[in-house]
Amino acid sequence: MTITAITTDDKRFTLKEGEGVDSVHSDPSYSYAVTYLHTDSGTTGIGITFNLGAGTDLICQAIELLSEELVGKDVDELMANFGEVSHRLANHPQLRWLGPQKGVVHLAQASIVNACFDLWSKQRDKPLWKLLIDLEPEAVVSLLDFAWVDDALDKSEALEILQQAKKGKQERAGVLETGYPGYDTSVGWFNYSDELIAENTRRAIDNGFSAMKLKVGSDAPSRDVRRATLIREITGDQATIMLDANQKWSLGEAIRIGREFQAMNPYWIEEPIHPDDVLAHAELARELSPTAIALGEHVSHAVLFKNFMQAKAMQFCQVDCTRVGGVNEFILVSLMAKKFGLKVVPHVGDMGQIHQHLVLFNHISLGLEKIFLEYIPHLRDYFEFPARVEEGVYRVPDEVGASCEFCS
Amino acid sequence: MTITAITTDDKRFTLKEGEGVDSVHSDPSYSYAVTYLHTDSGTTGIGITFNLGAGTDLICQAIELLSEELVGKDVDELMANFGEVSHRLANHPQLRWLGPQKGVVHLAQASIVNACFDLWSKQRDKPLWKLLIDLEPEAVVSLLDFAWVDDALDKSEALEILQQAKKGKQERAGVLETGYPGYDTSVGWFNYSDELIAENTRRAIDNGFSAMKLKVGSDAPSRDVRRATLIREITGDQATIMLDANQKWSLGEAIRIGREFQAMNPYWIEEPIHPDDVLAHAELARELSPTAIALGEHVSHAVLFKNFMQAKAMQFCQVDCTRVGGVNEFILVSLMAKKFGLKVVPHVGDMGQIHQHLVLFNHISLGLEKIFLEYIPHLRDYFEFPARVEEGVYRVPDEVGASCEFCS
Repeated sequence: MTITAITTDDKRFTLKEGEGVDSVHSDPSYSYAVTYLHTDSGTTGIGITFNLGAGTDLICQAIELLSEELVGKDVDELMANFGEVSHRLANHPQLRWLGPQKGVVHLAQASIVNACFDLWSKQRDKPLWKLLIDLEPEAVVSLLDFAWVDDALDKSEALEILQQAKKGKQERAGVLETGYPGYDTSVGWFNYSDELIAENTRRAIDNGFSAMKLKVGSDAPSRDVRRATLIREITGDQATIMLDANQKWSLGEAIRIGREFQAMNPYWIEEPIHPDDVLAHAELARELSPTAIALGEHVSHAVLFKNFMQAKAMQFCQVDCTRVGGVNEFILVSLMAKKFGLKVVPHVGDMGQIHQHLVLFNHISLGLEKIFLEYIPHLRDYFEFPARVEEGVYRVPDEVGASCEFCS
Repeated sequence: MTITAITTDDKRFTLKEGEGVDSVHSDPSYSYAVTYLHTDSGTTGIGITFNLGAGTDLICQAIELLSEELVGKDVDELMANFGEVSHRLANHPQLRWLGPQKGVVHLAQASIVNACFDLWSKQRDKPLWKLLIDLEPEAVVSLLDFAWVDDALDKSEALEILQQAKKGKQERAGVLETGYPGYDTSVGWFNYSDELIAENTRRAIDNGFSAMKLKVGSDAPSRDVRRATLIREITGDQATIMLDANQKWSLGEAIRIGREFQAMNPYWIEEPIHPDDVLAHAELARELSPTAIALGEHVSHAVLFKNFMQAKAMQFCQVDCTRVGGVNEFILVSLMAKKFGLKVVPHVGDMGQIHQHLVLFNHISLGLEKIFLEYIPHLRDYFEFPARVEEGVYRVPDEVGASCEFCS
């Protein structure tokens, strides 16, 4: 199977009033820069990366510039040593000035790489999760680019983690029967009224969710505290509630407001400050301990994740395969999280379509704890095979590939 | 004076064989994404940001998306509280997903902001350096966005630094008579032969330079050591020699190879590893002490610089106003460097055109040490007012604005 042509699509969707709005991103139009890898077999690999609207066309153009070298490549050969391929993409001699490994060019890489994994899964006639868990440890590490992270995790350590995780793999594969738990992100978008939040909380519980998220970062912190307490009162102590500030605060604000939240026992506080500020997050984590810090949706590559982990600046790693350079960098970051003893709970720029596969791999093949996967239903009507979340649980997808087909 | 329209230009230049080549960027085509701020007065503000070729058009498109809000703005009003303006640009509710403050969108911001400062200088009928050193401390801090850096430097501390630096300002203004020293970056591009490096070294000394740079990062470190030693032998102990690896090494390699260089006494080792790797640079700095670490050309914003400074991971801060979000973020980073006691030696993506102004401001108004400014002559024929470097010294520019006019 040979890649014969590459095309892109700038897909933008209009959300309902208030959906997707947070304290910083006030006007989202959920969007995908889509990569199509056309082949001589008629099979098409589809990859996506996420954006909030404006500039999605720039990612598409970057995909076209960056993916040139893939045309004419045989899929087996391409995936046989994909770590080297992705190192080359991330270090394009001219385009890397626009990164490296960040912003538009790395989002483009994510879309391209995700398309490669979708194509590979289809060629092997398997869902992505099945393709990945069937790989031997040596095959997994050959997918990864260890450049600039090998002081924290090198190839041999990664191999050892994978080898050791073989123990218990069969038992953990039980998740394929039960499904993977979800959590409801859409209970409390930033501009929702208290009444709507209360209604959404009750509905989330009725729908089988026991974990949910509230957007915080109000100009008056008392509004945040009131709304967080409201959810806690409705759910009682059994529910898991996460608070997400979307980078709104300074370090000083995060410490002060974070302490106010502790009375309602949040499971984590997410993206409290600027997503590149490793040392501020480390100080915050110390100040708010034992309250956990979560971030990752804006952490663009493995080197930065390494810094967050080394500095003990995150407890929940929210790596997103549509923010880092695609499926293989997601796996690399997950392996680092395993080494550092962190929990991985992906952010789902893909609305969970790809990540529903990846959390199965993380749990079964890496032995990472099964926690829950974010669920955002706002785009489900646009996917041909939308994630099936029933009774608060992601059902295991059975279609081949990475579940990125859009409805025509 | 009101901005009536904004246009862009994708300018790419072909270099001579070997020019601009380093261990990582093997095929550069020096390029500028240019912003033109047209006004009702006929005066045009011109701003640039640097790239290596491919993708410069993406920056131009991002400039057009990001700069929309400036059309119709009065220049005095715009610059009266420019800190807020640039905070808004960096936090565009949709485009910030492509950053924040990094990659294509932040390079676009640099070009736009630099054009604003060029326009403001022309409106005031002054060279940029004169405009800046004539500003009162309060006016300087109103240009700056302290978001997410205020745990290290807030507005009042910045004001205090500026106030205290008034002492000695007149004396330091002597640099306007003598000019600002330069250093020669083009002695030893990566693929130059030993013979050409020897010839360039002798020519640099003949041209009045006492400081120069060699590109390192060879597959065989012995090649780097041989070439560094060659320059040292030609110049003797009096010359200042810098070594630049352009991010080539892992931490382990940087420690090992860095130690080998110490015998020839480099002034600094530049960009040894990945430019986002704060903790690896901190460890390297400890391992190689007293050899200094320099970086900044790929550090895209003030929050990351703050981390490098707090972690003691850099001794020379090479902030570049065509990498961070323009002149005002350059000043913010310079103020942080002043607070942390670091030396500022800008990288010159602009070939020194704007930075020849900014180092005068840094020395005169901030009291930062006068060291030297990088000099790269490869594009001088394309500028209408190319930097005049004579006897190894940047002569003070006397044209109004920021010296970014291109030849027609």
